[in-house]
Amino acid sequence: MHQSNIAMIGLGVMGKSLALNLLDHGFNVTGYDINQQNRLQLEREANTLAEHESKGRFFSAENLSQLLGSLEKPRVIALSVPAGSIVESVVDELLSVGLSHDDIVIDTGNSLWTDTEAREKKYAGQLRFFSTAVSGGEVGARFGPALMASGDESAWQYVQPMWQAIAAKVDEHGLPVDPFEKGEPCAAYLGPAGAGHYVKMVHNGIEYADMQLICEAYHFMSQVLSMSAVDIGRVFERWNRGVLNSYLMEISADILQTCDPVTGQPFVEVVLDKAGQKGTGLWTAVNSLHQGAAAPTIAQAVFARAISAQKSVRTQLSKQFPFAGGKSHCLEHQQVLDELEDALYCAKLVVYAQGFDLMRNMSDQEGWQLEFATIAKVWRAGCIIRAGFLQMISQAFDTDKTLNHLLLADDFVESLQSRMKGWRATTANSALYASPMPGIASALHYFDSLRCETLPANLLQAQRDYFGSHTYARVDVPENESFHLTWSGTVREQVKA
Amino acid sequence: MHQSNIAMIGLGVMGKSLALNLLDHGFNVTGYDINQQNRLQLEREANTLAEHESKGRFFSAENLSQLLGSLEKPRVIALSVPAGSIVESVVDELLSVGLSHDDIVIDTGNSLWTDTEAREKKYAGQLRFFSTAVSGGEVGARFGPALMASGDESAWQYVQPMWQAIAAKVDEHGLPVDPFEKGEPCAAYLGPAGAGHYVKMVHNGIEYADMQLICEAYHFMSQVLSMSAVDIGRVFERWNRGVLNSYLMEISADILQTCDPVTGQPFVEVVLDKAGQKGTGLWTAVNSLHQGAAAPTIAQAVFARAISAQKSVRTQLSKQFPFAGGKSHCLEHQQVLDELEDALYCAKLVVYAQGFDLMRNMSDQEGWQLEFATIAKVWRAGCIIRAGFLQMISQAFDTDKTLNHLLLADDFVESLQSRMKGWRATTANSALYASPMPGIASALHYFDSLRCETLPANLLQAQRDYFGSHTYARVDVPENESFHLTWSGTVREQVKA
Repeated sequence: MHQSNIAMIGLGVMGKSLALNLLDHGFNVTGYDINQQNRLQLEREANTLAEHESKGRFFSAENLSQLLGSLEKPRVIALSVPAGSIVESVVDELLSVGLSHDDIVIDTGNSLWTDTEAREKKYAGQLRFFSTAVSGGEVGARFGPALMASGDESAWQYVQPMWQAIAAKVDEHGLPVDPFEKGEPCAAYLGPAGAGHYVKMVHNGIEYADMQLICEAYHFMSQVLSMSAVDIGRVFERWNRGVLNSYLMEISADILQTCDPVTGQPFVEVVLDKAGQKGTGLWTAVNSLHQGAAAPTIAQAVFARAISAQKSVRTQLSKQFPFAGGKSHCLEHQQVLDELEDALYCAKLVVYAQGFDLMRNMSDQEGWQLEFATIAKVWRAGCIIRAGFLQMISQAFDTDKTLNHLLLADDFVESLQSRMKGWRATTANSALYASPMPGIASALHYFDSLRCETLPANLLQAQRDYFGSHTYARVDVPENESFHLTWSGTVREQVKA
Repeated sequence: MHQSNIAMIGLGVMGKSLALNLLDHGFNVTGYDINQQNRLQLEREANTLAEHESKGRFFSAENLSQLLGSLEKPRVIALSVPAGSIVESVVDELLSVGLSHDDIVIDTGNSLWTDTEAREKKYAGQLRFFSTAVSGGEVGARFGPALMASGDESAWQYVQPMWQAIAAKVDEHGLPVDPFEKGEPCAAYLGPAGAGHYVKMVHNGIEYADMQLICEAYHFMSQVLSMSAVDIGRVFERWNRGVLNSYLMEISADILQTCDPVTGQPFVEVVLDKAGQKGTGLWTAVNSLHQGAAAPTIAQAVFARAISAQKSVRTQLSKQFPFAGGKSHCLEHQQVLDELEDALYCAKLVVYAQGFDLMRNMSDQEGWQLEFATIAKVWRAGCIIRAGFLQMISQAFDTDKTLNHLLLADDFVESLQSRMKGWRATTANSALYASPMPGIASALHYFDSLRCETLPANLLQAQRDYFGSHTYARVDVPENESFHLTWSGTVREQVKA
């Protein structure tokens, strides 16, 4: 009997797709799922593949003992199970059946990075705990995902050939190519345990914000410019051929031009406007607050989903405050669209900049030494937030490894400056025409705040000293000296704190 | 020897002020602090008070055993120590010296509400754990704070007379009166353990946002209208006599007209524009994200502080992007100021609405049965966020106890509608003139989002179904049915999920 190169535990949408992708690239794969149907389904699909000589062989394990017996050593076992305590249950079960200390267990789920760190510590000496965050959804996992690996560095040599084979690929211009062709794979080792899941979390936070920005543009075109879904889809299609080129823009254009098979109406108009969320966007926003590394546009995207879920309050309020703006015929259509395109582009750049700033902050704190050019490269294909301008981001970090903030990179300055006017005009219009753009506006206010050498936090510090004696620093003496003003005295004096 | 009615452990700024306030109202107080200097300082100040017959007597305890011996039973012991593990250390020490199960220990610090819940559980049966969040800073604590009590209900009868005596008072119109006069006290029992600290946390979140909004108005007047600090202070003073009447507006007007005693310059201009934060604002924003009860303006205020701390990036970026807007002479000064006043008022209302919505959400989840009219009443005087319109808020909740959202109250609808134009114009100007208003803008976008019966989350749900098979609900069938579209098929079909 041939031995398998890797086992996959959990054969839901993602696990199955990764397994088929591995088979496609000639690796032998063992599959196991507590739900037998999932395993048998994969078995059937793998058998179809197996008619080709070049494909890997699939071994269908009925239990974990068979699974362990089927693997070459050191064993490489990937988990595709829901994030949370189930990850540990499976690892503990594997240990009870019998793992060697050099066997490698890879968590490919959307685990919280601190859980991953805790697990690496917990299992140290018993096995090599490794993690690989996967982006690209079902299609990505099947035909070329972006893979963010981290954990035990010695495990990487066993994992690397498989991950680089199945990952999405880009050519020398950073453009996606067929994953069977030569190209730079979108898979990389990013750092110690937790780093990969953390980077994926921020990826998802950016994804949340990116989706929200596109939705705001759609909403404005629909409400204020009275455009049909199909017409908006066509505009998105055009934008997708320019600087806004990205996967999310591409699928949005497709969605908006899709008809509902049931009613024949534009599909988007039959979909209920209440959004769910799966945790990672929320985690990113919370982490950003805790770290003091502002990612307000990501937070706004999370809030926008929460507000979308408050439909009954919205319905009530819409009656109290009927649409006050919109449906304007005063606006010059084409100009407004051009401005909107500029706004969307600027806001997107700023969201990515917020994400990278957050990762820098965390990398410094945790000593991960994240390589930001590598991360940008991994995101250029396969993943949900792949976008043309990730090439520009990777080049910015390649050019200046110590780059403090993406907005300081020359290409960014130029990009933003040339589109600033449209961004401002769009944000102003959204306020005047009552079409909410919490994301696009927050990106502008973030940018404008960062652009201010002096912010009004001086008044804020004075307020805090006034009511709470919290003290203040001065602009004309070293920052570490703090003072208090005797606000309640008849003559106000400064005292050293 | 007379016995004390209450002991205060921790005689820093807040503890000392509360103790003097209690003495002022005729209660006998025992004081203790591990720092002897703090105790002796209070002793001196208490001795001055003691010349008046009507005042309470101060007993200076050198250790916890003396402290316990000095108290009538059941003993009432208030802690004014930093939030965190030190609260437990002190309680544990008190227990080791000797507490009775009916003695009452009150945490008056800014503890995280979940810590307070855990502590009540931990000490159940050993003592009556109680909490009272205090707002009003040093002056409030000394001459009339707002007091938010919660915890063991049987303890309230012993605490109530003291808290109601020392709290701030309002007259029948909800206006602050001298705390020695007759009036409705700003002290109330709000619910089970944790509730009081939670309400105080949200109070502080609102405070963060309120301060940020005022700072944004100041910044705009300074940057775009080229007004001097003193002139801005005068405008604030005028606004404080109108609908914007509030403590924070009052002190901001005072601060802006204050000269730096060192240089003679406007005080605010010598203060460094880097703001710190003490946790509660951050906790509110994080809680809002977790609860899915959007308080985006509070989050923006936390982010604004974080950005203020990134001064070196700001200094760099200000060179790359010199101020693009500002210093406009095209704007009609008085009109712009009127619009700004309207914007500030609307944004403030919305912030309070966000805070109350968050409390409603949490109260429902935890079964606290918070009375929102009571909370609004407690906040009308003494606390940092006291404001004229809290009377309107308390009336809104008195009129309709089941009010779903403050923005639905008739008075709010009217207030906002009459000032909407100025709010929109100001937000538009902030974008066009590059003067950041993350708070004022986020409040408008929150309002405009809530006002939309249909939000673009329909496109978002379609995106999620497209790349991740996350399914969607439809507008034309019951919401609990979910579907998936076969996006990758040649003919797209809807399948039931």
